[in-house]
Amino acid sequence: MERYTDLIASLPAWPVLDELIDRALREDLSGGDLTTEATVSPGTQAVATAVAKSELIVCGGPVFERSFRRLTQPTRFVVHAAEGARVGPGAPLWEVAGDARGILMAERTALNFVQRMTGVASLTRRYVDALPPRGKTRVTDTRKTTPGLRALERYAVRIGGGHNHRDTLSSAVLIKDNHIEAAGGITTAIERARRYAPHTTKIEVEVETLAGVDEALAAGADIIMLDNFAPDALRKAVRRARGRAFIEVSGGVTLARIPELARAGVDAISVGALTHSAPAADISLDIQRAP
Amino acid sequence: MERYTDLIASLPAWPVLDELIDRALREDLSGGDLTTEATVSPGTQAVATAVAKSELIVCGGPVFERSFRRLTQPTRFVVHAAEGARVGPGAPLWEVAGDARGILMAERTALNFVQRMTGVASLTRRYVDALPPRGKTRVTDTRKTTPGLRALERYAVRIGGGHNHRDTLSSAVLIKDNHIEAAGGITTAIERARRYAPHTTKIEVEVETLAGVDEALAAGADIIMLDNFAPDALRKAVRRARGRAFIEVSGGVTLARIPELARAGVDAISVGALTHSAPAADISLDIQRAP
Amino acid sequence: MERYTDLIASLPAWPVLDELIDRALREDLSGGDLTTEATVSPGTQAVATAVAKSELIVCGGPVFERSFRRLTQPTRFVVHAAEGARVGPGAPLWEVAGDARGILMAERTALNFVQRMTGVASLTRRYVDALPPRGKTRVTDTRKTTPGLRALERYAVRIGGGHNHRDTLSSAVLIKDNHIEAAGGITTAIERARRYAPHTTKIEVEVETLAGVDEALAAGADIIMLDNFAPDALRKAVRRARGRAFIEVSGGVTLARIPELARAGVDAISVGALTHSAPAADISLDIQRAP
Amino acid sequence: MERYTDLIASLPAWPVLDELIDRALREDLSGGDLTTEATVSPGTQAVATAVAKSELIVCGGPVFERSFRRLTQPTRFVVHAAEGARVGPGAPLWEVAGDARGILMAERTALNFVQRMTGVASLTRRYVDALPPRGKTRVTDTRKTTPGLRALERYAVRIGGGHNHRDTLSSAVLIKDNHIEAAGGITTAIERARRYAPHTTKIEVEVETLAGVDEALAAGADIIMLDNFAPDALRKAVRRARGRAFIEVSGGVTLARIPELARAGVDAISVGALTHSAPAADISLDIQRAP
Amino acid sequence: MERYTDLIASLPAWPVLDELIDRALREDLSGGDLTTEATVSPGTQAVATAVAKSELIVCGGPVFERSFRRLTQPTRFVVHAAEGARVGPGAPLWEVAGDARGILMAERTALNFVQRMTGVASLTRRYVDALPPRGKTRVTDTRKTTPGLRALERYAVRIGGGHNHRDTLSSAVLIKDNHIEAAGGITTAIERARRYAPHTTKIEVEVETLAGVDEALAAGADIIMLDNFAPDALRKAVRRARGRAFIEVSGGVTLARIPELARAGVDAISVGALTHSAPAADISLDIQRAP
Amino acid sequence: MERYTDLIASLPAWPVLDELIDRALREDLSGGDLTTEATVSPGTQAVATAVAKSELIVCGGPVFERSFRRLTQPTRFVVHAAEGARVGPGAPLWEVAGDARGILMAERTALNFVQRMTGVASLTRRYVDALPPRGKTRVTDTRKTTPGLRALERYAVRIGGGHNHRDTLSSAVLIKDNHIEAAGGITTAIERARRYAPHTTKIEVEVETLAGVDEALAAGADIIMLDNFAPDALRKAVRRARGRAFIEVSGGVTLARIPELARAGVDAISVGALTHSAPAADISLDIQRAP
Repeated sequence: MERYTDLIASLPAWPVLDELIDRALREDLSGGDLTTEATVSPGTQAVATAVAKSELIVCGGPVFERSFRRLTQPTRFVVHAAEGARVGPGAPLWEVAGDARGILMAERTALNFVQRMTGVASLTRRYVDALPPRGKTRVTDTRKTTPGLRALERYAVRIGGGHNHRDTLSSAVLIKDNHIEAAGGITTAIERARRYAPHTTKIEVEVETLAGVDEALAAGADIIMLDNFAPDALRKAVRRARGRAFIEVSGGVTLARIPELARAGVDAISVGALTHSAPAADISLDIQRAP
Repeated sequence: MERYTDLIASLPAWPVLDELIDRALREDLSGGDLTTEATVSPGTQAVATAVAKSELIVCGGPVFERSFRRLTQPTRFVVHAAEGARVGPGAPLWEVAGDARGILMAERTALNFVQRMTGVASLTRRYVDALPPRGKTRVTDTRKTTPGLRALERYAVRIGGGHNHRDTLSSAVLIKDNHIEAAGGITTAIERARRYAPHTTKIEVEVETLAGVDEALAAGADIIMLDNFAPDALRKAVRRARGRAFIEVSGGVTLARIPELARAGVDAISVGALTHSAPAADISLDIQRAP
Repeated sequence: MERYTDLIASLPAWPVLDELIDRALREDLSGGDLTTEATVSPGTQAVATAVAKSELIVCGGPVFERSFRRLTQPTRFVVHAAEGARVGPGAPLWEVAGDARGILMAERTALNFVQRMTGVASLTRRYVDALPPRGKTRVTDTRKTTPGLRALERYAVRIGGGHNHRDTLSSAVLIKDNHIEAAGGITTAIERARRYAPHTTKIEVEVETLAGVDEALAAGADIIMLDNFAPDALRKAVRRARGRAFIEVSGGVTLARIPELARAGVDAISVGALTHSAPAADISLDIQRAP
Repeated sequence: MERYTDLIASLPAWPVLDELIDRALREDLSGGDLTTEATVSPGTQAVATAVAKSELIVCGGPVFERSFRRLTQPTRFVVHAAEGARVGPGAPLWEVAGDARGILMAERTALNFVQRMTGVASLTRRYVDALPPRGKTRVTDTRKTTPGLRALERYAVRIGGGHNHRDTLSSAVLIKDNHIEAAGGITTAIERARRYAPHTTKIEVEVETLAGVDEALAAGADIIMLDNFAPDALRKAVRRARGRAFIEVSGGVTLARIPELARAGVDAISVGALTHSAPAADISLDIQRAP
Repeated sequence: MERYTDLIASLPAWPVLDELIDRALREDLSGGDLTTEATVSPGTQAVATAVAKSELIVCGGPVFERSFRRLTQPTRFVVHAAEGARVGPGAPLWEVAGDARGILMAERTALNFVQRMTGVASLTRRYVDALPPRGKTRVTDTRKTTPGLRALERYAVRIGGGHNHRDTLSSAVLIKDNHIEAAGGITTAIERARRYAPHTTKIEVEVETLAGVDEALAAGADIIMLDNFAPDALRKAVRRARGRAFIEVSGGVTLARIPELARAGVDAISVGALTHSAPAADISLDIQRAP
Repeated sequence: MERYTDLIASLPAWPVLDELIDRALREDLSGGDLTTEATVSPGTQAVATAVAKSELIVCGGPVFERSFRRLTQPTRFVVHAAEGARVGPGAPLWEVAGDARGILMAERTALNFVQRMTGVASLTRRYVDALPPRGKTRVTDTRKTTPGLRALERYAVRIGGGHNHRDTLSSAVLIKDNHIEAAGGITTAIERARRYAPHTTKIEVEVETLAGVDEALAAGADIIMLDNFAPDALRKAVRRARGRAFIEVSGGVTLARIPELARAGVDAISVGALTHSAPAADISLDIQRAP
């Protein structure tokens, strides 16, 4: 699992995270927490441990910690499982000790964050594990992320062992059918993009036929996205592009097709489901009164 | 489908929505859209139609429209399918016409919103459809929502035919095991809550045993949440609570168990999966150049 | 005064408060403080003590402290009077020591907060003290709060010994004349609300006649708000509702009428004036240079 | 009343107001309006008229209108009473027609704004009306405003016929006892301020004795604030300052003392109560169903 | 000048711009405009024309218009000079007619925006005009932009005829000396970046010697940035990189050196001064009273 | 240089600065820093020293420090050069030690702030140094500041030895030609302003002729701004105003004209270029790996 450890610090910067966490806490707590205020006396201490209820890929510890820290000053925070670690049911993940009221008030927000992040990381790992060993193919996310949470979800994909696709509409050029039609053809579209975009930007083109692959290669596309290619056409496209362009497959990709696509030699497989359809990971918070 | 139509206007208020939509557009577009700027000439007109790719419960039309409207002034917007309608693959949902650049730039953001909203509505409908006809049981969401998007997801649950649970920690009292332990018992916890909380607030208690049900009833709980009750105990609890308290079941609820739980006479079944694990609905945007 | 002490920690959460405090400081200080910058040398130390100038119910200590802390790191902060305590003229409330410039710059903002909060708490206490001893009636606030400051004012009401009414338009159902007319009657309105609203939500109806009380009781209203009932009708309404619904009186309530209303047996008296017309408490800040 | 009419357009700019209004609407409506959604069918039309319930000075019409406009597009908006007009009980103020749901949802927020603004304007007018006719003395507000609402409250003071004091800590220099002590004396404090502050800034000094007045005059203060001067000392101070500095009285000013202070010849009387203790004006909203 | 016209619509999206414009208006206007409110009667109409006072490259028309539109509804807005046009002293740029108060209040904010934007565009054009005709070299900006205004300044560079460099730290990889040292060498750094970064991301390396160029080429860098190369080494680097990598020169670039650098065959010259040191363009606003 | 040291603490308040700094960091870092994440292992330590590359007036140390502190907790921060100090090429300014990743990620943002601030301070100092020794004339800024950064730029002007002009449109009255025309003359305009504006506000009038000077003096203007006066008229204006009004010169002021204007006896010279056209100061960050 060593390869994931150097990603740990690549969490979004605090000015980005704090805004998300404060927004989430306000969403739940702007009128207070009636139950906790009424039933838990000030000064009560507690220890809360997040526990995996099924096998999962751990993700979100720093966000978990920060959610509590915005409400109260924990007396202790322990990381039991590193970001990216695979753990089984019953495994403790993180432990926070301190004021019981603050812990109970932040509980749901903290869990909502990490259940989503861990869910994305865990689903991503399933796709990554389906790749043949020692291959060069990467599994990537897409821009099909939850509005407002893109930075967190891209982080979770990385923690899961996947790679990111372009972050925003300005991070890379991706020419699709409507752009090709508007520009008057693949070649023109690529030329216009090359003339317009920063030289630091790669140009990707989505094509539907082998003729499209050829035209994109001739026009100097950096990346060619194959849309719904039959297996045979896919292999041909890969051969033609070898050494000339990076090949990405997208659209209708299921977990079952990952091995076959990777063996066909594609460089990347982008999977919208990693972020738009990952079920929440099953994580519970066990809270015990502390002396 | 008549019962859903009067919910249409219960979308979150514009000051709430506009903040979400602007935030999402900035997340994707703060550096512009290199591809569209390079390849689509200003003044180009287009018509874009959102199309269902599978059977789904329509949700999010107004958010879809507003996403485009924040970038450009559409010349036409048509609603082909009402909020809450069930449509099949190929059905057109909404149609927007206007400046091609603006449409292409807002496309992904608009889809990210409605795919999630429609996903939640569609999953909710599956649970609701599993209820026996003419029963009184309702399916509800929980606070296990996406950080920052609770208002949208609760709306989607309503559009799906479900009901909402409490909105925030201040909307109702919900006494769980930690509160009971901190207060020193169910009775004390309920009394403290009744003394502290607004009189407009219901008091719900989560119990794990029939003795807990009895104590909650005696203490005057408005709602009793049964946690992992065996079928037999469940039926007993329902009988004892009849006419005295509202019975909610929560935890480990699957679609398959809905009929059985409803037939046991519970008043509400709360399902976290409605919002935390709904896969995105499959909706595509067909964009055609307009004359 | 013991009953108020366990409310101390029920202050709004920091992500809610910090936004209010920063906004207020920016409102006053975005161009700096010309006078202090010109006349007080950096490094000057001071001790500032908030002092009550009349009898009042203390409220807002944590907000007071945080206002200074956002500008400078105090070397000492002392609470002389607990939240909810009744103190007389001359009593010290809170003491902050540290950088004189920071203290002078935050002075007005800190005072503006606590004078309002203490004003609301003090007025509330006057209403609460007018209740007969050992009665069950509670005095509550309304949604007639200062735009943007609702959470602070509701906290002040609780510190004053009052109770809160519903927090927002989604915390409870409150059916008024316009809703009744739109729905076609009290019974229909209640039924629509029960069908639509979360099961965690109480339903309150405002009625103007005894016939309205009867209809609301028959339809199962949880709370009945009596609008301008004559004393005799009021007592009748209370008798009919006993054990069936909670009775709230609202509208035109003065301090003088509190004993009579409470003795009539109503469960709650809601008073808009607690928040919309409480005069600011008279609190001054004595600042002394420190060695 | 003609003198107030040219103040009408001096409302804070829209980017300032819209932020306040949206914030207030979100505070009340972020979870929707359960009652209205449940009982009022979409498409229902209504006409709402704000009506004075007591004599008052009208203030806040544009804020009232904008509160509704952020939720719905009114079909009609009528101003029955101009900003600054004095009206009696029963007088219609403003009328808004359109979607009944939007009107009911914005009702409380709109009223909370105008009741406060009208309250401040009405109280201010009482102080202004207590001034002798054709005098030069002005009644001003202070920085003792509601956190976050300073711009609105200063506008209300102007509409009431009062004048504003300095807006923020950077709008003017106001040297108080702590500044004098820190600087080492009145003269030094004024010199430091003159050297430091923009040349566009007036320098005001608060003094407690006639000797202080003399020193401030000698040092060239633009404005001298007299703190708790006995009547005789007050008249002396005014005489000495004539033609050399503007004289302001502050602290412990009641409505009853206004005539006496004005006749003593002071130029301005600043009254914190205008903003920190104005009771809300009594305004109700009559809502009628429209055909 | 035809080549600039298709850039006009590539202004940042409205949700990005509106936030900047509102922030700027609030910065200047949160306390109102004393002078205009006092001296210009409501209802006064005016026509304001922005006029170039020296030769310049026009930039910022839509931002200019929007600044006025946020305060008042102009009755007319005319564009006299297109974005990117070169005009001489005295040329009218844009004309806005409407409420005189709103125009005077927005004047300074609108000018502050366009003077900076036009300043950047004009300076950029000078560098671009210094390029040899029909060459392939582009002049680009850097990340040395004004905090908060990067999107506007990058737009101005494009309008000036320049190109953008990477937008943010996540838009492209740019390996500098500290990264090389931390990674343990150019080759390792490039490999780590290729393994980590999205496949849509180009990898640029800054090198200081010809040996560095060779190593970067061997490791497959997409772009090589030459730091302070002597003319002879520069030409050698260009020859070696031909067809293998894009060559960018950065650091210490003056206008005078542009022709020589371009003739040496480099692909891009990045110039921090375009955004961090462009003097404001001289534009005045002539305001006339309208009938 | 002693006179600048007591300005150090007059930096804008943290609630103002933190918003600017977080906004700037998010602008650059919302998608992370691909290069640093890929090449610098977590845990790597570094020491970074800001170094002057040319002679300059130091400005912005606290903002520099805070930029790093928002991303990481530095282990050491050293101020080598005080705010306002003049240093030569090679001089160390500030030194920050800690996590290498955080330091590299904040580098550009921190530099963008201080290069601008130091640029403004350094340009200001050149104007101030051009003043005759022991004169009374001050050099001031204007409202021609960068949108959103006014507080920082005004601080830099003060650090440079200059003075500030009015901060916002509500800080002082400044009557220009359009106001005079709208009001119907200088005298009327001044009278309206005096009647309307807070008594804490000075009134400045811009005039173009000696007759205008006379009228402004007669009407009691506090400050007269001379617009494009010939040397002879300028001296006459100064003589007439002596002891009656403050004289400011504005418009078309170059560094070369400063001595002559000061010798003519004007009180203030306002220079838009201080903020709108100051080139960025040349400051680099030397980063060394730490053990």
